[in-house]
Amino acid sequence: MFYHDGGKLQYPVRVEKPNPLFAKALQQAIGGIQGEIRVCLQYLFQAWGARGPVKYRDMLLETGTEEMAHIEMLATAVALNLEGAPLEQDEAAKDPVVYAALGGMNIQHVIGTCMAAMPVDAEGVPFNCSHVYASGNIAADMLANATAESTGRMLACQLWKMTDDPGMKDMLSYMIARDTMHQNQWLAAWEELGGAKNHPIPNNFPQEDENQDFNYAFQSYATDNSGFKVPEGKWTKGKSFDGRGENSVVTMKPLGDKPSLGKASPKAPVQKSQQ
Amino acid sequence: MFYHDGGKLQYPVRVEKPNPLFAKALQQAIGGIQGEIRVCLQYLFQAWGARGPVKYRDMLLETGTEEMAHIEMLATAVALNLEGAPLEQDEAAKDPVVYAALGGMNIQHVIGTCMAAMPVDAEGVPFNCSHVYASGNIAADMLANATAESTGRMLACQLWKMTDDPGMKDMLSYMIARDTMHQNQWLAAWEELGGAKNHPIPNNFPQEDENQDFNYAFQSYATDNSGFKVPEGKWTKGKSFDGRGENSVVTMKPLGDKPSLGKASPKAPVQKSQQ
Amino acid sequence: MFYHDGGKLQYPVRVEKPNPLFAKALQQAIGGIQGEIRVCLQYLFQAWGARGPVKYRDMLLETGTEEMAHIEMLATAVALNLEGAPLEQDEAAKDPVVYAALGGMNIQHVIGTCMAAMPVDAEGVPFNCSHVYASGNIAADMLANATAESTGRMLACQLWKMTDDPGMKDMLSYMIARDTMHQNQWLAAWEELGGAKNHPIPNNFPQEDENQDFNYAFQSYATDNSGFKVPEGKWTKGKSFDGRGENSVVTMKPLGDKPSLGKASPKAPVQKSQQ
Amino acid sequence: MFYHDGGKLQYPVRVEKPNPLFAKALQQAIGGIQGEIRVCLQYLFQAWGARGPVKYRDMLLETGTEEMAHIEMLATAVALNLEGAPLEQDEAAKDPVVYAALGGMNIQHVIGTCMAAMPVDAEGVPFNCSHVYASGNIAADMLANATAESTGRMLACQLWKMTDDPGMKDMLSYMIARDTMHQNQWLAAWEELGGAKNHPIPNNFPQEDENQDFNYAFQSYATDNSGFKVPEGKWTKGKSFDGRGENSVVTMKPLGDKPSLGKASPKAPVQKSQQ
Amino acid sequence: MFYHDGGKLQYPVRVEKPNPLFAKALQQAIGGIQGEIRVCLQYLFQAWGARGPVKYRDMLLETGTEEMAHIEMLATAVALNLEGAPLEQDEAAKDPVVYAALGGMNIQHVIGTCMAAMPVDAEGVPFNCSHVYASGNIAADMLANATAESTGRMLACQLWKMTDDPGMKDMLSYMIARDTMHQNQWLAAWEELGGAKNHPIPNNFPQEDENQDFNYAFQSYATDNSGFKVPEGKWTKGKSFDGRGENSVVTMKPLGDKPSLGKASPKAPVQKSQQ
Amino acid sequence: MFYHDGGKLQYPVRVEKPNPLFAKALQQAIGGIQGEIRVCLQYLFQAWGARGPVKYRDMLLETGTEEMAHIEMLATAVALNLEGAPLEQDEAAKDPVVYAALGGMNIQHVIGTCMAAMPVDAEGVPFNCSHVYASGNIAADMLANATAESTGRMLACQLWKMTDDPGMKDMLSYMIARDTMHQNQWLAAWEELGGAKNHPIPNNFPQEDENQDFNYAFQSYATDNSGFKVPEGKWTKGKSFDGRGENSVVTMKPLGDKPSLGKASPKAPVQKSQQ
Repeated sequence: MFYHDGGKLQYPVRVEKPNPLFAKALQQAIGGIQGEIRVCLQYLFQAWGARGPVKYRDMLLETGTEEMAHIEMLATAVALNLEGAPLEQDEAAKDPVVYAALGGMNIQHVIGTCMAAMPVDAEGVPFNCSHVYASGNIAADMLANATAESTGRMLACQLWKMTDDPGMKDMLSYMIARDTMHQNQWLAAWEELGGAKNHPIPNNFPQEDENQDFNYAFQSYATDNSGFKVPEGKWTKGKSFDGRGENSVVTMKPLGDKPSLGKASPKAPVQKSQQ
Repeated sequence: MFYHDGGKLQYPVRVEKPNPLFAKALQQAIGGIQGEIRVCLQYLFQAWGARGPVKYRDMLLETGTEEMAHIEMLATAVALNLEGAPLEQDEAAKDPVVYAALGGMNIQHVIGTCMAAMPVDAEGVPFNCSHVYASGNIAADMLANATAESTGRMLACQLWKMTDDPGMKDMLSYMIARDTMHQNQWLAAWEELGGAKNHPIPNNFPQEDENQDFNYAFQSYATDNSGFKVPEGKWTKGKSFDGRGENSVVTMKPLGDKPSLGKASPKAPVQKSQQ
Repeated sequence: MFYHDGGKLQYPVRVEKPNPLFAKALQQAIGGIQGEIRVCLQYLFQAWGARGPVKYRDMLLETGTEEMAHIEMLATAVALNLEGAPLEQDEAAKDPVVYAALGGMNIQHVIGTCMAAMPVDAEGVPFNCSHVYASGNIAADMLANATAESTGRMLACQLWKMTDDPGMKDMLSYMIARDTMHQNQWLAAWEELGGAKNHPIPNNFPQEDENQDFNYAFQSYATDNSGFKVPEGKWTKGKSFDGRGENSVVTMKPLGDKPSLGKASPKAPVQKSQQ
Repeated sequence: MFYHDGGKLQYPVRVEKPNPLFAKALQQAIGGIQGEIRVCLQYLFQAWGARGPVKYRDMLLETGTEEMAHIEMLATAVALNLEGAPLEQDEAAKDPVVYAALGGMNIQHVIGTCMAAMPVDAEGVPFNCSHVYASGNIAADMLANATAESTGRMLACQLWKMTDDPGMKDMLSYMIARDTMHQNQWLAAWEELGGAKNHPIPNNFPQEDENQDFNYAFQSYATDNSGFKVPEGKWTKGKSFDGRGENSVVTMKPLGDKPSLGKASPKAPVQKSQQ
Repeated sequence: MFYHDGGKLQYPVRVEKPNPLFAKALQQAIGGIQGEIRVCLQYLFQAWGARGPVKYRDMLLETGTEEMAHIEMLATAVALNLEGAPLEQDEAAKDPVVYAALGGMNIQHVIGTCMAAMPVDAEGVPFNCSHVYASGNIAADMLANATAESTGRMLACQLWKMTDDPGMKDMLSYMIARDTMHQNQWLAAWEELGGAKNHPIPNNFPQEDENQDFNYAFQSYATDNSGFKVPEGKWTKGKSFDGRGENSVVTMKPLGDKPSLGKASPKAPVQKSQQ
Repeated sequence: MFYHDGGKLQYPVRVEKPNPLFAKALQQAIGGIQGEIRVCLQYLFQAWGARGPVKYRDMLLETGTEEMAHIEMLATAVALNLEGAPLEQDEAAKDPVVYAALGGMNIQHVIGTCMAAMPVDAEGVPFNCSHVYASGNIAADMLANATAESTGRMLACQLWKMTDDPGMKDMLSYMIARDTMHQNQWLAAWEELGGAKNHPIPNNFPQEDENQDFNYAFQSYATDNSGFKVPEGKWTKGKSFDGRGENSVVTMKPLGDKPSLGKASPKAPVQKSQQ
């Protein structure tokens, strides 16, 4: 169960120079795949489905609750950036810069929401909840979360550079800081769970049941004449990352034959020549 | 540029007892968010957009090429599992088990593809390329890839358990092995790039430009009366995962005020009472 | 900004007889268009973008916060209904009822989430945030909300009938009650704002700028020979609902000509015969 | 069964000054969630599935048929606004205003349709038929329809303001008028069915089967220290909108415990620590 | 502008033995990619955007109007097949066949629409209007339409085989016949426009501006060691289909180099090692 | 199984004057419905599910492999067109043309991918694999492929006209040539399979089982008073395209009655008045 604080914001949101194009860019941080709706729902669904040590459920619940507040801050920032946006074509047509702003902004901010945020990305594509990754495997979920925070921080850094509005820069420097923390947090949990020794995920599948000829082999698919050299690194020699195997390199050839699915069934709606 | 091997399979695909419900489940490994279309396109788009050390581009190209072959294997497996599937209702109606199979299978395998695979997941939802994560940041991409292979291996393990067909078990034990390798590979690259010292991603944003009061603070959002204890771990005390800060715990209160967006513009299509 | 209560549920969630098919049906109340993710985000986005009297913003924030707790309850209910679901095909194959359950359940609950809820509907289609209706017009939003709660209550009633598990019936009777309240709440706000006198929405567009020949005319499109009688009601005669016009009936004929777009541009990629 | 009138338009569509940016904005009225494809299919699917008094089916069929003609008018308007749109970059590059038009227009109107309309919204997102709300409950459907017409009229008013083309203004003033009628029509039907006494929807679920402690209680979720005052209105005191209860206010505390999903099944693909 | 015939159906729709699983399968013919919503909107959008000889616009308008009536017939068929579908779990649980029916049906037909059709496919995925192909090139559109009718007829044939209900078989034999006509109609128009001589589409791009070394060459991508033989046919030798070239076979080698995108910009949010 | 050529491109890709707006337009050729991801997966899925003469499977595999290389070329072209794109708002704001470029470009190329391609179309909508048409009927698939190549060539011609960059013009003239070949190839296969005599597809459904009164009748739906003349052509008289029937024209009247779905079930969540 959840509570609010009367609508007060987690961190101040100020906009000195409203900018509808920046409002459009900020939408990515709300409804983009790197955005806050995604991490909010991702952490909460992971929490609500958590089985195993309760502290991970609790940690997920904490940070999922925080992310709700981040959507709120960004939605406020979008609305404030839309103040005074061009509403009427005739005004806009007079000035190339204004006209460009109208062309560059998300036109739905004018005609669909009366100058407010939407749960869409910077190109106007609505957020799709298939991006809420919650696998039920705690180690896999920690990696998914660290990924989300890494791309989220990239986005926030880029937005910070795109603006010179002091209020927006301040808000974004706070969000960048939170992304720093969250990256650390999820990877610290991953490490606490075993780090490299966690792997391969899931770690409860018997190693003898997987094909042991190919589980630590880097496979190369370059053609003979390509002049391509296998890219060498910690994945081609020495101990594997999980410490359970020895890396090797294999130049691949097909191990299987060309499949034949045979004729189509006479019952199927095919051409006669396929039967 | 790419080549094929005359249609020969990377690894043998055999089905002894076709099972249309298993065909439906296998679709998740083709068109699900953990599936092979996703990783194939993800690795290739990462390769094609790679800037920086060329060996990561090369590695991504190698494994992206491999994944094409995995889609091919799974598409073959789906088609073979559909051989002899119930095509006509009157036959099915006679036997509850057959009827259940018809109810449980993806009906589009009968009415849409003449017994062949589709680029959809186990529930029939088509793969959406928004899941092709390619951020341009090599470290973030390695984490995204390790995540994909972790959930991909979970899926393959689960499919392995769902079947007792020896051909399918053999194919899946190969795929599980490849997922083991790929998890190791992406994390080995991440480690080679700096591992924990990579973070926070992106690592080219000046630390002084982020808010330094909150970048290593675990924030708690439990209400005062909840009796909730902050979940302790490597994220609440000691050095941060990235070694750049010291963990702390903060019980959060709002730092911002309740925002006011003010009246709506008289130009906006609102109610008069909102102006 | 938001808080949690240590994970305690707003209302008890108990499941006595886990039922994976019911888990699938419950998903509609989480990720369906009538579901709780939708209303949660809808009320919050309306609140965050609200301009005008502050009490509507506050009310929306209250109920948006409540709906978060409902997603939590339903996610818990799905997880509890999946306890002991069939995980392995060989067991399932022995018993038609078990087999049917496997066929009828959302297979992703087994292979994708380790027996936990997803943000998808009963057919496995992920929730799409385009369903978060937030128009910025307070009266229009109240109608949208009343609609959502009406279909939400229909769904909850139907789920209540589908189950004889006492825990589930109790939880659903609570949810039905909340939907009752929320329908009343949004329509009470609509009435407070003017009710019928609100209309047409938006009420700040000058009536003289709309075409006044057709704004209170029921138009009929039946062919002359159809024998169809115009369906009579409060919309064909008497004062209009908004009290601003007099209803009438018009048998429609085209007022415009057949349009001609003319030849295609020679620059366009058309056939020569189209230029 | 349906007929056409040889392609003649329901109302004249003229464009004096083609404007590709306005063509992009008009797309919202075709393929947006407030658009004409939506209402057309919504009314027709409601008609085709209607059970109960036949006059509502008939009314839905009438207006669904009308909306087909509105899609036709808007598609014509888009095509006419695209006449002479910039087709070649080199021309465009010479003039900032032309260049901005190319940047601001939907580029698919040039490269995908040869200057014709698409079933997409103003941001190029294709219409998704999940927005065709047809619940089978006539009262719920009337509210859904009134909502659609309210946001549709908001959109049309905004488009009317964005243009100073006399032909477009005339067409839109007709469409605004029809939205006025349709709002009135659906709410008149809702009133005829009982209006406030309809509620709660569905009205055939026994009141004694819902939880009667919470069905007329406004629940508040503000934290104790927030200083937030419950927003008062017709929803906090007096008779409820439906006349079946008495409003009250409840400050909420959790009624349920923290749930425990227990350990994960050993069969599930989780980490060992979760079992 | 359009008219209806008072709701009378184009062709009789009768169901003797309602079958909810067949209702689910029929949904593919409504909201599937081969379905009637698709062809209806496709033909109408093609008509509304048609430039060039008016008779093609007229023909498209005719058949687009027909397809509206087909959606109507199928929606009626779905509703009739749902009469008496299992509504309550306790009844269903008694009988494996009934239980399987509940598992096999689209559960949203029970909980979302009160036993009526939806604009979704057989797996419950809503129709997405990106499938409305309308390119503005009349010859390309004729091929797109012939494709749609071919897969539509395949679907109808398969549905005809799945049922032994005389009413459904009769309705489907009518729909199969219409698909026969429409395939012929679109290809007859394609032939009238020039048939093979139409090609390549668009036929207004100067042949000398395309690369003439590769425009009639079948390129082979088999590896040297694959033992693969180039598949021979009318595409490897003799005159090309369009009569404008001579077929040949080329074993492909890369004509371009390995691209280098160079270092990432220091402004981009990448790792330092990428700059 | 597949191989790469060390990353060498099938054809050279050069960009002399990077242009972020052109990068956005090129995205349509990657992730649009006419784009290369679509044809690549379409041909491969058709190959992998092919039943019947093996040479069609082989041909599909060849060209599917080619298309992979085309995605690679286009992804490279997008990345090269983004070199030096405006990254910071303050710079952009100084110059209307730069500002317009920022407004006109896909902002995600800056904030989401570090100047690289995405699997999305020109409006930023991700590719959806429902567009991978693979019906299992070889003749239907050949038509689907010819359609895809026709619209793909239209797109490439239009992109060729939009740019005056010599590198881009050269690359596109190669792609236009390949589209010429592929159109010819698929239609040559269609002709080899029987051409007009293939039809109607599927050709294994007994003609006597379809309704023979309407399978070669052009149906007209114009109202009596419309003054509309049936559009005459090869579809209204003479032998049908498939040679199996004689064309005729029918002015349609309803053959069925107005359907009645009767009362709603008392179990359904409807209004009492519907029961």
